[in-house]
Amino acid sequence: MTEFIPPGTRFLDLPSPFAMKRGGVLHGARIAYETWGTLDAARGNAILILTGLSPDAHAAASADNPAPGWWEAMLGPGKPIDTTRWFVVCVNSLGSCKGSTGPASIDPACGRPYRLDFPELSLEDGANAAFHVMQALGIARLACVIGNSMGAMAALAYLLLHPGAARAHINISGAAHALPFSIAIRSLQREAIRLDPDWNHGDYDEQHYPESGMRMARKLGVITYRSALEWDGRFGRVRLDSDRRDDEDPFGLEFEVESYLEAHARRFVRKFDPNCYLYLSRSMDWFDLAEYCGTPCGDRGNDVLQVLARIRVDQALAIGVTTDILFPLQQQQQIADGLRAGGADARFLPLDSPQGHDAFLVDMARFGPAVGEFLATL
Amino acid sequence: MTEFIPPGTRFLDLPSPFAMKRGGVLHGARIAYETWGTLDAARGNAILILTGLSPDAHAAASADNPAPGWWEAMLGPGKPIDTTRWFVVCVNSLGSCKGSTGPASIDPACGRPYRLDFPELSLEDGANAAFHVMQALGIARLACVIGNSMGAMAALAYLLLHPGAARAHINISGAAHALPFSIAIRSLQREAIRLDPDWNHGDYDEQHYPESGMRMARKLGVITYRSALEWDGRFGRVRLDSDRRDDEDPFGLEFEVESYLEAHARRFVRKFDPNCYLYLSRSMDWFDLAEYCGTPCGDRGNDVLQVLARIRVDQALAIGVTTDILFPLQQQQQIADGLRAGGADARFLPLDSPQGHDAFLVDMARFGPAVGEFLATL
Repeated sequence: MTEFIPPGTRFLDLPSPFAMKRGGVLHGARIAYETWGTLDAARGNAILILTGLSPDAHAAASADNPAPGWWEAMLGPGKPIDTTRWFVVCVNSLGSCKGSTGPASIDPACGRPYRLDFPELSLEDGANAAFHVMQALGIARLACVIGNSMGAMAALAYLLLHPGAARAHINISGAAHALPFSIAIRSLQREAIRLDPDWNHGDYDEQHYPESGMRMARKLGVITYRSALEWDGRFGRVRLDSDRRDDEDPFGLEFEVESYLEAHARRFVRKFDPNCYLYLSRSMDWFDLAEYCGTPCGDRGNDVLQVLARIRVDQALAIGVTTDILFPLQQQQQIADGLRAGGADARFLPLDSPQGHDAFLVDMARFGPAVGEFLATL
Repeated sequence: MTEFIPPGTRFLDLPSPFAMKRGGVLHGARIAYETWGTLDAARGNAILILTGLSPDAHAAASADNPAPGWWEAMLGPGKPIDTTRWFVVCVNSLGSCKGSTGPASIDPACGRPYRLDFPELSLEDGANAAFHVMQALGIARLACVIGNSMGAMAALAYLLLHPGAARAHINISGAAHALPFSIAIRSLQREAIRLDPDWNHGDYDEQHYPESGMRMARKLGVITYRSALEWDGRFGRVRLDSDRRDDEDPFGLEFEVESYLEAHARRFVRKFDPNCYLYLSRSMDWFDLAEYCGTPCGDRGNDVLQVLARIRVDQALAIGVTTDILFPLQQQQQIADGLRAGGADARFLPLDSPQGHDAFLVDMARFGPAVGEFLATL
C-alpha cells in the first residue's frame, strides 16, 4: 500500500506495544506526518492539524513535496495558517492507509496485512498516537490544535486525554459524539463495501478489489458532504451530452449530478483501502465524549457539556456550516458552549456556506478569514 | 406477482394500445384501484388520491378489505377525508407492482414478464392512466385531486394535461421537478439494485432475487424520508442489547438506528418488484414541468412557474414539511406560487413536523387538520 504515501512524508515509531482503547496492542506501529515552518526556540509556535477520514498528511506543498496539498489554500507563507509564523504538523490518522499503521499495514506477528485482525480502532487511539508525535518533536504545549470533521472529534479527545497539551483549539465542522443520522449514513456506507463480493471479509487484493462497494460508499459520502442548495445552483437538471452517455444502459448516467458523483467516486476508490475505511468509519460512530462523564446525569446533552467543560484551553473557535447535514450546526454550538463552561474564551461561528460539511475544503472565502483571524489573536 | 395485490382491489382495462409519453405502447394494460364512499347523483363529490412510489391502492379499510390501509388515519367516515361526504378513489400507479401493469406484469406479446422491455415510464403516463379510471367511473370533474410525494408530481401532470379535470388540488410534499440532490439519492438507490449480482439485468426470480440491493435502496430511502431531528430524539446513541447483536460480525448492527433501518428494509424488499422500483424511481428524476414551457424564458424556476400558472383549479393547498430533505419546502412554495399566478386561490402551508418527507404518513396531528379543513371549504 506504499503507493498511497506522498513523497516527503516523515514517520514516527510509536511506543511498542501501543495499547488501544478497546483492547489489544500494536507492535512496531508508526505515524506518518509532515511539517511546515520552523519551531521557535521556546517551542511555543506549534500547530497540530488532525484531518478528516480520508486525507493524508500532505496538507500543503512543502520543500520535499511541491505538489499542492488537500488544504493548500489554508496553509503556507502568508496564508491563514501562516507558516512564516507557525510550525505546523499534520498527521495521518492511526488506522488510515496513507503512511500510518492501519488495517492495510503488515502485521509484524505474521508478515501479512492485518486486515480484520487489526484491533478495534477508536478515535482516542488516533489522538494518543498524534500526542506521541508531538512529544517526539519536543512540543510540550501546542499553540493550537486544529481539527476538521473526524479530526475535530479526535481533537476533543486529544485535549481531554492530555490536559494542558494546547493553549487554543479550532474545531471545524466537528462533533462531541455521532448522531443517529450520521451513524445511519456511515452504517450504509460500510454495508455497501461489505456487500461487495470482492470485499471477501476483508481478504481482497488488487485483482479482486471491492471497487463497486467503495464507489457506492464514496458517492453516499459525497452526497452528505455537500448540500442540496449548492447542487441546485451548480447542476440543476442539466443532462450529459449524448456522447457522454451509454445508451445501452437504460439506467446509466444521465444527469450532470450523476456524472459528478461518478467522477468523485472513481478518483477515490483505488486510493483508499476498504478495510481502513471500515475501521475509521466505525470509530466515528463509536466516538462519544459523554463516555467520560464519571457520574452521568442521565441527559446525554448535559453529559457531553460536562465533559467538554473539563477540557482546558484558553481560547477556542468552533466553526460550523448552516448547510451541513452530517455534522449539523448545533453540534459545533454545543462544543463552544461546553468549552466556554470550562473557562475558555470560546466562540461559536456559524458560516452561511452553501457547500455543506465539505465547505472547509472549498469555501476559502469564508474559512480563510475565520481561521486566520483567530490565529492572529493567539 | 399477484401476491402484492390486496384483496378488494378493482381493475380498469386501459385503452389498448395505450401510448406512452416517451414512445412505445402497452397492450392490454390495466390499473388497480379502490374506492370508498358513494358517488353522488351529480357526480361532483369525487376525490382522486395519487400515491407515493411504493403504496398500493389500499389507502384505508373498506368493506371488501377490512385491513388497515397505508393512510388509514386520513381516510374513512368522520376522518379528514370523510367518506360519508366524499367518493374517494385511490389508484395504484402505472408501472407499479400492486395490481397495475408494470415491468413485473406479463407482456401479452410473449407471455413472459416485461422486465426491462417495459417501455420507458413517465409520471405523465401514470397521470393519463388515472384519468382513464376517472372517465370509466363517469367522473368528468373531480372535486379534488390529492397527491403525495411522487403522486403530488403526477397530480400536477394530471391537472396540466387534462384541463378542467378537477376543481381543487392538495399537493403534499410534492415538486414540479426533481432537484439534483433527490436525483443523486435515487440514482444511488438504483445503482445499489443494479450492482446486486442477483438483479442480473432485470432477469431475476424468487430464488435469485436482488435482496441486498433492494435492502440498500430501501435503507437509503428511509434515511432521506425521515429527519435527523426525529432520529436524535427517538434513537440517540442507544445500542442494541447483546442478544440482538451478532458478535461474529465486526461491522454488524450495533446501534438502534441501524436495527430500525434493517427492519424497515426487510419488511419492504420482497414486497416490491425491483424492476418496478427502477422504473418508478427514474420517472421521478425525469419529471419536469418546465418541459411544457413552449417558449422557455431561460430561467428554470420561471419556466416552472409559467407552466404551473397554466393549471386551472379554483382552490389549491400545497403542504410541505420543514425537515423534508428530499422534497424541500421551497418546492411546495413554488407550486402554491405558480397555481396562484394561474388564478387559483392557492395556499402554501409549511408544517413544522420533525418527521421529514414521510410526515404525511405519520404526523396526523398536523396533516389531518390541514387536509380536513381544506376539504371542508370545498
